[in-house]
Amino acid sequence: MKALITGPMLAAAVVLAIPAAASPPQGSGTAWDIVADLTTEVGPRLDGSEREAAARAWAAARLKALGFQNVREEPFTIRGFVRGEDRARLLAPAVQPLAITALGYSPATPAKGIEGEVAYFPTLDALKAAPAGSLAGRIAFVDHAMRANQDGSGYGPFGNVRRQGPGIAATKGAIAIIIRSAGTDNHRNPHTGVSSFPDGVKPIPAGAVSNPDADLIARTAAAGRSMRVALTLTSHPQDGMPSGNVVGDLVGSNPALAPIIVACHLDSWDLGTGAIDDGAGCAIVTAAALKAHAAGTQRTIRVLWAGSEELGGWGGIAYAKAHANEPHALAMESDFGADRVWRVKLNLADEALAARIAAALNPLGIVRGDAKANGGEDVGAIIEAQKLAVIDLNQDGTRYFDYHHTPDDTLDKVDPVQLQQNVDAWAIVLGIVGNAESDLKPVG
Amino acid sequence: MKALITGPMLAAAVVLAIPAAASPPQGSGTAWDIVADLTTEVGPRLDGSEREAAARAWAAARLKALGFQNVREEPFTIRGFVRGEDRARLLAPAVQPLAITALGYSPATPAKGIEGEVAYFPTLDALKAAPAGSLAGRIAFVDHAMRANQDGSGYGPFGNVRRQGPGIAATKGAIAIIIRSAGTDNHRNPHTGVSSFPDGVKPIPAGAVSNPDADLIARTAAAGRSMRVALTLTSHPQDGMPSGNVVGDLVGSNPALAPIIVACHLDSWDLGTGAIDDGAGCAIVTAAALKAHAAGTQRTIRVLWAGSEELGGWGGIAYAKAHANEPHALAMESDFGADRVWRVKLNLADEALAARIAAALNPLGIVRGDAKANGGEDVGAIIEAQKLAVIDLNQDGTRYFDYHHTPDDTLDKVDPVQLQQNVDAWAIVLGIVGNAESDLKPVG
Repeated sequence: MKALITGPMLAAAVVLAIPAAASPPQGSGTAWDIVADLTTEVGPRLDGSEREAAARAWAAARLKALGFQNVREEPFTIRGFVRGEDRARLLAPAVQPLAITALGYSPATPAKGIEGEVAYFPTLDALKAAPAGSLAGRIAFVDHAMRANQDGSGYGPFGNVRRQGPGIAATKGAIAIIIRSAGTDNHRNPHTGVSSFPDGVKPIPAGAVSNPDADLIARTAAAGRSMRVALTLTSHPQDGMPSGNVVGDLVGSNPALAPIIVACHLDSWDLGTGAIDDGAGCAIVTAAALKAHAAGTQRTIRVLWAGSEELGGWGGIAYAKAHANEPHALAMESDFGADRVWRVKLNLADEALAARIAAALNPLGIVRGDAKANGGEDVGAIIEAQKLAVIDLNQDGTRYFDYHHTPDDTLDKVDPVQLQQNVDAWAIVLGIVGNAESDLKPVG
Repeated sequence: MKALITGPMLAAAVVLAIPAAASPPQGSGTAWDIVADLTTEVGPRLDGSEREAAARAWAAARLKALGFQNVREEPFTIRGFVRGEDRARLLAPAVQPLAITALGYSPATPAKGIEGEVAYFPTLDALKAAPAGSLAGRIAFVDHAMRANQDGSGYGPFGNVRRQGPGIAATKGAIAIIIRSAGTDNHRNPHTGVSSFPDGVKPIPAGAVSNPDADLIARTAAAGRSMRVALTLTSHPQDGMPSGNVVGDLVGSNPALAPIIVACHLDSWDLGTGAIDDGAGCAIVTAAALKAHAAGTQRTIRVLWAGSEELGGWGGIAYAKAHANEPHALAMESDFGADRVWRVKLNLADEALAARIAAALNPLGIVRGDAKANGGEDVGAIIEAQKLAVIDLNQDGTRYFDYHHTPDDTLDKVDPVQLQQNVDAWAIVLGIVGNAESDLKPVG
């Protein structure tokens, strides 16, 4: 083999020559640098972990270096989740390893694992319809048919297999549950994510297998063959783990006006490095805030890099509690990857202002949607408490659930061109609302 | 969530509703059934393993059921490889897990693992240029720039990083070597594959990390930061493991004519289920042989489902030895996935026959290449020993190295439409050469 490149170009060329990844120009901007450095220098940063603490220190240092004021960590404590070793094997009709991950808040199996016959359910509704006690001693498997779509709307109903399935299976006597990953890819990377169990229900070990593994189970079920599975999950919940938010301000020229809050979350699932979920979101809101502020804003723009979103939006709840007595003018969040913004939703009573924002975004290929903007997990609590105006910049989610909560959530999945379109769109919005002197109120 | 489908359609619908996978019609043909059933009912079948033995039993039963005669297992013994637990972590500058797999014939590390500073090499040539002894106590990392292409020609030079890199690093004193996977995807699935060490060189633990992990290492190296890695590989070679070929004949109408041999390999790497490598190949050659035979052939078509190809073509060597005294007319092999045939290469002295074959394939979108047909690993030894005529049906390899030797080599990667185009092309060729009464001799 001949070296393709030699000499002084080498170091840069190595980085640019990443297979299948879009190649960012060197020094391509604040947003790229944030997501690249966070995923490279910190990596996975699960809620409550030492790595999440390392991410907070990294984030505070970065925000200060970028010129933010009042940068601080705001600590809180959570019920966390400690990743162990998660394994599963099909034992019958043939021995085959299954690519599995424990779901968030799943209890561990005994160390030697458990075995059970598989009860196959094609849908969550089919599981719900199973008679009480019918799963005693068995491992439930729940299939589904999630498909990729632009607005990510499948994550509500199909994500319920993960959110609700474990609790339902537990109430029917299952000794464990395995679900088809809530994902739209066909790689051997399972999708983790939080689950929960209703009060009074004894939690059971709960995992997700990759789509190709779920296909194998579905084919075997369709052939009418019975299945046995061996399952060992050592991941487990843990109380009293430290977490925290990181907050910083770009102070506006008119302190009489309430600040705008723009949020993302700093924590990530541990399987990948949290590039699209949600390093990119922090990169977008921060770079856009800097851009708008540099052009001049009367209102202060506050950046919230929330902690512990993945396990239940703990950072957003903590923020709303800690800042209940401070006014906020409007809230926005970026937490849906780094692909292009295609739609804006404006929950703004001032229709002239809303129309002005929509018109300004139009040259970026962004259309206007309805007023049902909701912000997101990290600003949901403060929006609810203070009845805030909200603007959503909806991103193209077609490939988001290919990578979401998997080992594949890595930097190469971020397209720097689309990332920059996000920054530009956000900066336009922040430039307008940051200088709006009228009260910013929601519709109705 | 509402069930999308209910009632009697359910079982079939579950199978058809596989995300991102082409949906084969039920009962869509012999080829699909072979690769689907082999991957479902046997799964991973590493050279020398119990699962490879199970695959031989499965294969013999299937060939008999399909009407093959003289079906038999032909056992041999190999130096095998036992998969253990393979792990790596970047320790500095930041702790990050690395998705790694041991390379075939890598020795194990001590059970508690090893740690070392990383010596980064952008190419195999750069590793070759390292001074003797310069890697003492260090872990070599070798990067490269393999890209997808239609004819798979990158696997020669870039595959050498895997084949030769470990031996070279060992001679320079490295305690271990990690390479960027010889693959063209950007998923967190490392590509395994066989390696080797020159005589007299003490083997060192050798692994491959996924491309996103290699990107992380390359970025860190480009930033000029030193790296430490912790490596634990418990996979290891093992002598005296049982393997074998499975052979069956479709007897032609004229026993005076030497048979045609069509080959694939039955073994697979253990990370995936060997769908494209090489369940699909066995499916193609077998279904095509049956189709040509049903239409009438004077020559016998012999199917060879070779064992232990992955660790060094042991099955092909064993076949050539066992059948050295039997005449063969012509050899072909399918071992490059299941995507469409785009080119035929004919090493046939009878140019009129070669031209007739090429013309017959043209309606399937297949062009003619040169005469440098080489067959493949499983027929290489018999071709060499008997100077056989060879025909290659070259498949589109653009996405082959996205999945090759990874956990992602699963059934959903087989496109049933392209699989059937392969069968049709092979059947055309076998129909013509199976009735060619002239001697089938190679060029020159």
